[in-house]
Amino acid sequence: MPDLLLYDFHLSGNCHKIRVFAAILGLPLELKNVQVLDGETRTEDFYQISPMQQIPVLKDGDIIVQDSQAILLYMAMKYGHDWIDRTPEGMAAIHEWLSYGAKEASNGPQMSRLSFLDPHENIDLERAQAVGHKVLAQLDRILSTRDWLCLGKPTIADLAVFPYVALSREGNLPLDDHPNVLAWIDRIRAIPGYYPMEGMLPAL
Amino acid sequence: MPDLLLYDFHLSGNCHKIRVFAAILGLPLELKNVQVLDGETRTEDFYQISPMQQIPVLKDGDIIVQDSQAILLYMAMKYGHDWIDRTPEGMAAIHEWLSYGAKEASNGPQMSRLSFLDPHENIDLERAQAVGHKVLAQLDRILSTRDWLCLGKPTIADLAVFPYVALSREGNLPLDDHPNVLAWIDRIRAIPGYYPMEGMLPAL
Repeated sequence: MPDLLLYDFHLSGNCHKIRVFAAILGLPLELKNVQVLDGETRTEDFYQISPMQQIPVLKDGDIIVQDSQAILLYMAMKYGHDWIDRTPEGMAAIHEWLSYGAKEASNGPQMSRLSFLDPHENIDLERAQAVGHKVLAQLDRILSTRDWLCLGKPTIADLAVFPYVALSREGNLPLDDHPNVLAWIDRIRAIPGYYPMEGMLPAL
Repeated sequence: MPDLLLYDFHLSGNCHKIRVFAAILGLPLELKNVQVLDGETRTEDFYQISPMQQIPVLKDGDIIVQDSQAILLYMAMKYGHDWIDRTPEGMAAIHEWLSYGAKEASNGPQMSRLSFLDPHENIDLERAQAVGHKVLAQLDRILSTRDWLCLGKPTIADLAVFPYVALSREGNLPLDDHPNVLAWIDRIRAIPGYYPMEGMLPAL
């Protein structure tokens, strides 16, 4: 069994996607809590672990991977081959959604939620909500003709995008208006090993 | 020779990274101009090409790839193997920076520039500049101990991050204060096939 350590924060959707993927793959994952709200990611000690100064960070023996999307890709390539497709077009299709998870899902749903969770963050809520509405509408349309974001099967693309979308209500975004998104979240919930995080309950 | 078509906009740094990579690889690239400022990406016709409603989009025969980072990955996997590393840890190292290109480089330098280029965009310039300063300082420190962003060689990681960083001055961000970033941009400029885009000149 690999020796996996996750630098983690329990309220982070980006950490949650790693916790969920490890659970789905049946991989043991030691969690090390990082005091994000107290500025621990900005310390010199943390810089030595993560020059990007962010969580999650995965340590697999001597290998360190930063960024939740990169961690999903690493885990899939090493431990979960069914969750990617190694052809150029397959990797590209997945990668479109890894970028979407890094950018759109972050700038909309994640920032909306963060502005309520941590009022000290100087977030433009109006803009975050505008992006959030657009993201939910776009996903709802795309998911009206497919069950999974790409490749006709569950992949790390779905895991990369779903957490902050599933947490949209905490950012005052209208998830209930988007039935195809809700049905997709239900399909993710039904994957063996999946478990929700705080804030996704009870409605999800 | 492949039959490559890029849905392009000349002022887009995300399009530029694809144009540069094609030039470096010696691949012919037909350009199709998209009227982004007139809302063409939001039309129904464009949705049928790109459900994410964004540029650049690459068409390679029957294959369509959205998102500049996904396009770089696709091109490297298919036409430029030296520009990636296919091991799990190599792909992860590159991917950290693809996410950085999608998020940090976008939210800081790209948004700062866009607020000056297109005042109709409702951008929080103060926040974009704060992120931009942080990004430049972070890159400058990271590049103080290495020539390339990862793997000790030029990869698509560098190409993913550099355009909006190299265009920082157009967003009123102080590139000149960051000598390691400037030296890195010079190394990218020296790659055979590289060419600058408008706005990177004359200082770069």
